[in-house]
Amino acid sequence: MSEAFDAVDVIRTKRDGGRLSDEQVDWVVDAYTRGVVADEQMSALAMAILLRGMDRAEISRWTTAMIASGERMDFTDLPRPSVDKHSTGGVGDKITLPLAPLVAACGAAVPQLSGRGLGHTGGTLDKLESVPGWQASLDNDRMRQVLTDVGAVICAAGSGLAPADRKLYALRDVTGTVEAIPLIASSIMSKKIAEGTGGLVLDVKVGSGAFMKSLDDARELAETMVGLGADASVPTVALLTDMSTPLGLTVGNALEVRESVEVLAGGGPQDVVDLTLALAREMLALAGIDADPADALRDGRAMDSWRAMVAAQGGDPDAPLPTARETHTVLAPAEGVLARLDALAVGVASWRLGAGRARKEDPVQAGAGVEVHAKPGAVLRGGEPLLTLHTDTPERFERALAALEGAYDVIPEGDRPDLRPVVLERVAG
Amino acid sequence: MSEAFDAVDVIRTKRDGGRLSDEQVDWVVDAYTRGVVADEQMSALAMAILLRGMDRAEISRWTTAMIASGERMDFTDLPRPSVDKHSTGGVGDKITLPLAPLVAACGAAVPQLSGRGLGHTGGTLDKLESVPGWQASLDNDRMRQVLTDVGAVICAAGSGLAPADRKLYALRDVTGTVEAIPLIASSIMSKKIAEGTGGLVLDVKVGSGAFMKSLDDARELAETMVGLGADASVPTVALLTDMSTPLGLTVGNALEVRESVEVLAGGGPQDVVDLTLALAREMLALAGIDADPADALRDGRAMDSWRAMVAAQGGDPDAPLPTARETHTVLAPAEGVLARLDALAVGVASWRLGAGRARKEDPVQAGAGVEVHAKPGAVLRGGEPLLTLHTDTPERFERALAALEGAYDVIPEGDRPDLRPVVLERVAG
Repeated sequence: MSEAFDAVDVIRTKRDGGRLSDEQVDWVVDAYTRGVVADEQMSALAMAILLRGMDRAEISRWTTAMIASGERMDFTDLPRPSVDKHSTGGVGDKITLPLAPLVAACGAAVPQLSGRGLGHTGGTLDKLESVPGWQASLDNDRMRQVLTDVGAVICAAGSGLAPADRKLYALRDVTGTVEAIPLIASSIMSKKIAEGTGGLVLDVKVGSGAFMKSLDDARELAETMVGLGADASVPTVALLTDMSTPLGLTVGNALEVRESVEVLAGGGPQDVVDLTLALAREMLALAGIDADPADALRDGRAMDSWRAMVAAQGGDPDAPLPTARETHTVLAPAEGVLARLDALAVGVASWRLGAGRARKEDPVQAGAGVEVHAKPGAVLRGGEPLLTLHTDTPERFERALAALEGAYDVIPEGDRPDLRPVVLERVAG
Repeated sequence: MSEAFDAVDVIRTKRDGGRLSDEQVDWVVDAYTRGVVADEQMSALAMAILLRGMDRAEISRWTTAMIASGERMDFTDLPRPSVDKHSTGGVGDKITLPLAPLVAACGAAVPQLSGRGLGHTGGTLDKLESVPGWQASLDNDRMRQVLTDVGAVICAAGSGLAPADRKLYALRDVTGTVEAIPLIASSIMSKKIAEGTGGLVLDVKVGSGAFMKSLDDARELAETMVGLGADASVPTVALLTDMSTPLGLTVGNALEVRESVEVLAGGGPQDVVDLTLALAREMLALAGIDADPADALRDGRAMDSWRAMVAAQGGDPDAPLPTARETHTVLAPAEGVLARLDALAVGVASWRLGAGRARKEDPVQAGAGVEVHAKPGAVLRGGEPLLTLHTDTPERFERALAALEGAYDVIPEGDRPDLRPVVLERVAG
């Protein structure tokens, strides 16, 4: 079959600062999915996009083309309005675990298609897999049934959604072309729109432990994604949230499930509770449901939804969670106020302890991770525990401790640390 | 074996506008040659280099690394000083054919390792292969022998010279990363320096039929290459020469050999003679030979060298050259002065007639091409022949004629056309 365009012409157009026509975008995404445009051609184009940018209409067309590369789900016939959340990934970001059942308990359907972790941020599926018996895979019929009955499902995305994105994402990872806002935005939004959600709340993380280090970059990404949602008629709102320090008091798989269950039981760290409620309110507003999620946390309905959701995927919500075989405690170095606890350093330490993976085929340890005993702003006594490291393989302590060097500052009591709220900004269309 | 660098880190360095360290350059060129750095990684790096540039020291190191990827020849033990010429490629550019034997006749050794044509500019080897019996391949011992005896050899470059360049060149061709001055300069110079020439004259073409369309780009390329020659202790001079119109009166393989023989016989078109002599003078100066090449053309010594050179590679200098089976003549559209005859259009027409190839495995027609009956500045009578198209496959005339639409302007007699000299500028270290 003769091709409508030549890959080199398309690459040159972007390389020289031009805009890609709708037809060029449609062709190059489709031809890449078919293997007619080769990996080395797409990587050159990705680098040109990273350095030259794409305008709003180009990004929108690119997203549409990636959605068109695969199947598109549809939940409009469910008895509940569907709404989903996506986080750009952070250290200790277990929010999906309490959030999905909480929003379901208020009457929405939350179809969470999630991924596994790679690098210093953990994956939601890795966390849930620490629950004995829980299975990430669910066929479409079963997924719809759980959404109807329970209202929340967290499962692995099937390979049929946006296959162009899957292929391109793997390529970007090895070619230094991950950090392009048009490609990040279209990657996230193509998957979420193909997933068929009726509304979408984005948690765009900002800070050392996040992909976006600066508020400006995070805002640009959020605005781009909110616009793409509008273009696809999927109402989308974004919160820019702090990721300079880990979320909550645990980083790791089973450790984060435990903390999520505490939140569902009405307890848990304040920042996790605050962010869960803030995102739940946005999701319920998009779903057109007039309910206060704080009530559903208080009265146990969210916990009931969690137990039903876990059980629907073979998990035993009453089974004890796995724990690591070895722990090592890091003591506060001095008396004073904890002024900083760096998210990236704690994330890397947790990863090195076995909670994350370096390659996608690596296993993760369910019990590994970092427990945080004090958050920035806390008053410390010298010698009291600051962090507890967990692992099944104690030879990992040394490299984890190396990652934590310089990761925290203690200032004299009376000096005021520079503390940030969890929710920094809201971006809506 | 553990690698000294990570490809993504190297790509990111250049992507973000940094300079590559010597160690990064050495590693990435070597690792690409070994296949450790993948094509899709090198193409992303090539795009980053195209858009971010490289400084003079980076380009020099890159060139050295490409030379180090293979063998390096050495002609210092020959009884003659060696000197070579490289052209960036133009339409009707047969200059190597008369030039190499001419400079040899004056006492230098000219080791011309040439390539085949791809696209609208022909290749020197394709032209010579229209001489009955002539063979492009020569082993190293035979090459040295011909250089010693005759002084000039034009043959195919062995695969041992700068293999990194061969691999990278093929990649750039399909990824829209050809037009990067650092990569063009290092590609040309790595091959020429590895070839072992003692001095080098560069013919950098400027204009519609050339790779460099503007004088500024051509000058930057020339200055970069002259600098790379100096860094490698290979004295290098560049001439910037006009390629807005074809060189001479013939474009094609056997057609250009015929014209070259006319020049060697003391005739031929003035622009071909002028450029051949200008380049010969530069080459002889670099070789430290005090001789006027015009004498060697006049007294037949250059023709003797040509005959010996052709015969040394199995060619019969007395055999009739192949001619095309069909011709089609394009007539001057009106009376007046030919103000413009576009090099690119004539090159594309010749290519479409069968003189060039679209893919490197395609054959070429020895007799195909375009004969030019009038050069810019010539006075035309309406209805007299302007161009004659030659091909073995007359179904090609239509597409060749389409390439020539708008390729020439005729202005009223008395109006002065804008004519350019062949040699526009000289760049030396």
